[in-house]
Amino acid sequence: MSRAAEIYPADRLTLREVGLRDGLQMVKTWPDTAAKEDWIRREHAAGVRHFEIGSFLPATRFPQFADVPDLARVAAVEGVHGIALALNERGVRDALDAPVGEVGLVISATEAHSRANQNRSRAEALDLVRMAVEERPERGPLIGVGISMAFGCSISGAVPQAEVLKICEALLEAGVDLIGLADTVGYGGPDAVAALTRDARALAGDVPICIHLHDTRGLGLANAAAAMDAGARVLDGALGGLGGCPFAPGATGNVVMEDLAFLAATKGVETGIDLDALIGVREILATAMPGETLHGALARAGPPKLEAAPA
Amino acid sequence: MSRAAEIYPADRLTLREVGLRDGLQMVKTWPDTAAKEDWIRREHAAGVRHFEIGSFLPATRFPQFADVPDLARVAAVEGVHGIALALNERGVRDALDAPVGEVGLVISATEAHSRANQNRSRAEALDLVRMAVEERPERGPLIGVGISMAFGCSISGAVPQAEVLKICEALLEAGVDLIGLADTVGYGGPDAVAALTRDARALAGDVPICIHLHDTRGLGLANAAAAMDAGARVLDGALGGLGGCPFAPGATGNVVMEDLAFLAATKGVETGIDLDALIGVREILATAMPGETLHGALARAGPPKLEAAPA
Repeated sequence: MSRAAEIYPADRLTLREVGLRDGLQMVKTWPDTAAKEDWIRREHAAGVRHFEIGSFLPATRFPQFADVPDLARVAAVEGVHGIALALNERGVRDALDAPVGEVGLVISATEAHSRANQNRSRAEALDLVRMAVEERPERGPLIGVGISMAFGCSISGAVPQAEVLKICEALLEAGVDLIGLADTVGYGGPDAVAALTRDARALAGDVPICIHLHDTRGLGLANAAAAMDAGARVLDGALGGLGGCPFAPGATGNVVMEDLAFLAATKGVETGIDLDALIGVREILATAMPGETLHGALARAGPPKLEAAPA
Repeated sequence: MSRAAEIYPADRLTLREVGLRDGLQMVKTWPDTAAKEDWIRREHAAGVRHFEIGSFLPATRFPQFADVPDLARVAAVEGVHGIALALNERGVRDALDAPVGEVGLVISATEAHSRANQNRSRAEALDLVRMAVEERPERGPLIGVGISMAFGCSISGAVPQAEVLKICEALLEAGVDLIGLADTVGYGGPDAVAALTRDARALAGDVPICIHLHDTRGLGLANAAAAMDAGARVLDGALGGLGGCPFAPGATGNVVMEDLAFLAATKGVETGIDLDALIGVREILATAMPGETLHGALARAGPPKLEAAPA
């Protein structure tokens, strides 16, 4: 069995918490390191095992991620699979040196978004992926690569599915351990998500496909349901729906972790997550990020009471 | 072809606006009659053809619905299919005398909710349905009956699907023209919604099945997608997600009409609705109900731009 298949078992649904990275991308206030550690520990206790913990980026521009080496150590001790993003050579090398379980990289589905977002071509992004795979030490971190704008692009418009699958092929050839398909601006609908999930999984064999959805246009959970039905076994979410995207102004962020876990529960799909405990972790965010809106319907209304009330 | 099949054509998706009734059930301020007329006219111009326009209830207790006879006349002139709710004999007779296209009645899936919500048994609710069908004049309004708590009950807990189907059978025997399946408190998940939609449609033949979803626990649109995939051709929604339920405190309301129409568009399902025009109708609510939260992701983020931006 490949290491990726051990870390992302095919017989259950893995929900990854991306709030500590994707969720903190654009916020004004963020939790300090102690609060982030508390967040990881408590959400781990609620059953979540995979966390994006930050980015290896210049701390001068992204001070919210300056503590990523500390969090990597915490994750390693707690038995958390910690994922750190890296967007350039320096970041990839720093990430490969850190005790992280996975280094995350990004490639845009469209040339226009690649240049606007990362000031480089898709070919250059692919070169960085190849470098990461080559320089990764034996038993080193997994290399996971997310394809942003995979379901449509706010700059280039519609994105042909064949184009995304071509990028998947290039990533598989490069030897990556996981491929993410990201609906960065919420352009996808359930039929498109199901179709691309199915085709990417067929292409990828036992390399896990992770579906990363934003709730920008309200279809986040509908798309998640479609992905699960199409066989996706890894999905991203963020506690309280933290996050957003500079290319989708005014938008809500990542699909809400709590609602995602509830969706899986209604389908009888095992995630190992305790819904009430997960909802409880929101306290940490409410305290550490007082100005931030926490999304999420399940936390507001509570899980269903499926036992009859006493007569 | 039955009259119901003319009014709810099987070859397209009918989205019914229930904001003027279900959406105003629990609000503190509501639009005056002129604003409601404007709402109906503008949403009709955006492509919506079916509207719940109010309830025939005592105006002393429900002043927000006192203008239902006026709105029935407006609907009749505009070519709108106007639906008015009635919950007792008096209301049914008033509704049958008004120029409405449909009289809506309600029966609870569970005995406990029937007594708590309407202070009567399910058998008594069924008697009222029979009375409405018998007293309905030739070419009079359709008789539609919604089954509340059809996907789970906040009092009785889980609701067996067989129980709901038994009520469907009794309603079909009574001769109703449409059956609604309501997830009153957002207990349903997509798999349950798909299964019950499929079974109810098989039972009902050409009697339309309407799926009425609340977004209480975040799964409204996921459930709507599942219903559409299971062949539902009538769904309810409310502009801005107005509404709520006394049995689901703190909850968001009906599934958002704009997001529902967007969902259908992503599936290539014809609804006849212009998304931008529909979003524009929210202005009326923002002005007429200044204290009320308007939900809806599509209105916040805007429909996708599927043409490429100029280079």
